[in-house]
Amino acid sequence: MQIVASIISLDDVTKVEDVANILEFRLDLFEKIPQIGEVKQIKKSKIITVRKIDDGGRFTGNEEERLSLLKKYSEFADFVDVEFNCDEIFFDMNCRIIESYHNFDATPDYEFLKELVDNKRGDFFKIATLGKSKEDVLTLVRILSEYDDVIAFLMGEKFAFTRIMSLFLGSPFIYCHAGSSVAKGQFEVHEAFEIIKRLRGER
Amino acid sequence: MQIVASIISLDDVTKVEDVANILEFRLDLFEKIPQIGEVKQIKKSKIITVRKIDDGGRFTGNEEERLSLLKKYSEFADFVDVEFNCDEIFFDMNCRIIESYHNFDATPDYEFLKELVDNKRGDFFKIATLGKSKEDVLTLVRILSEYDDVIAFLMGEKFAFTRIMSLFLGSPFIYCHAGSSVAKGQFEVHEAFEIIKRLRGER
Repeated sequence: MQIVASIISLDDVTKVEDVANILEFRLDLFEKIPQIGEVKQIKKSKIITVRKIDDGGRFTGNEEERLSLLKKYSEFADFVDVEFNCDEIFFDMNCRIIESYHNFDATPDYEFLKELVDNKRGDFFKIATLGKSKEDVLTLVRILSEYDDVIAFLMGEKFAFTRIMSLFLGSPFIYCHAGSSVAKGQFEVHEAFEIIKRLRGER
Repeated sequence: MQIVASIISLDDVTKVEDVANILEFRLDLFEKIPQIGEVKQIKKSKIITVRKIDDGGRFTGNEEERLSLLKKYSEFADFVDVEFNCDEIFFDMNCRIIESYHNFDATPDYEFLKELVDNKRGDFFKIATLGKSKEDVLTLVRILSEYDDVIAFLMGEKFAFTRIMSLFLGSPFIYCHAGSSVAKGQFEVHEAFEIIKRLRGER
């Protein structure tokens, strides 16, 4: 189980490094994109993510620009986040790939999500969908109980618990924020750490 | 959502009354069974439970004695806990009934549990079974997403998170201890309260 802190500035690094195992550089949310040298010298494991507006991000460039940004930073990263519907060329990286599926309107049914996972081109598959009902939780648990390489949780404050629950069902990562939430229901990294410890009876 | 604190002595009452909504009097675990007057004067909602050894308790009397004890204390209680396989006469109480099923060896499949719930004679149905796998969590979530009057969780430290998760899936009660654990994986009542608050983003 790894705690991922999504960071949106280099100042976030010192805020989260005591508990985060991995830093996700949300380059689309950085006010000023960091120098490659600055990223390189950070010792933690890194995920490079550049989200388009359609996928909940703020990147406004074209796909060619996005690919080139991802490629450039991936040289010094452990993972690149690539959306499931990207062209094949996005999957040609020098590091491992977290293939991601986002749905801000609903949680599709189990069969739909299973097909996405079964056809994955990345190393891990990440599913983040809007939670609306207990049936969505059931769908999520069905997926999580079937795969060990799937990160899955429901977005929305009411379903924030699924972010923690999924870890206990074998999800390899939990995504947290470093002070200002990047997605609804996301926990601050120390808060997530504290909840996990308490659920494990480790305090 | 109600926090139930299982108490095993009258001294436990002051330990838990700040956060517990309901007190479960585990009369089988009391060293000295409290006077009926002592129970009567406690203002909190109450569940009366007298478990046999087979069901994880310590009551050694016969079923007639157990019934008489339950009946006597139920006069001043809000709920009595009655095991699912009890004779009909156990269901004739002057308060609401939490019908319970315990399994310390395994979690039966969904169909088995669903049949128990569908045939319930009590007001609520409580399922506490040993968790061994993710499939057991899936079974639990299937049951919880179908019913609003079912309390269900997996026993065992590895599956302690299901006690909290079930609340977020609409389970009406969470059972906690007052200082000394009554079942594996059970949370101390303040600890459960703290985790729930944090998961709700209320701190």
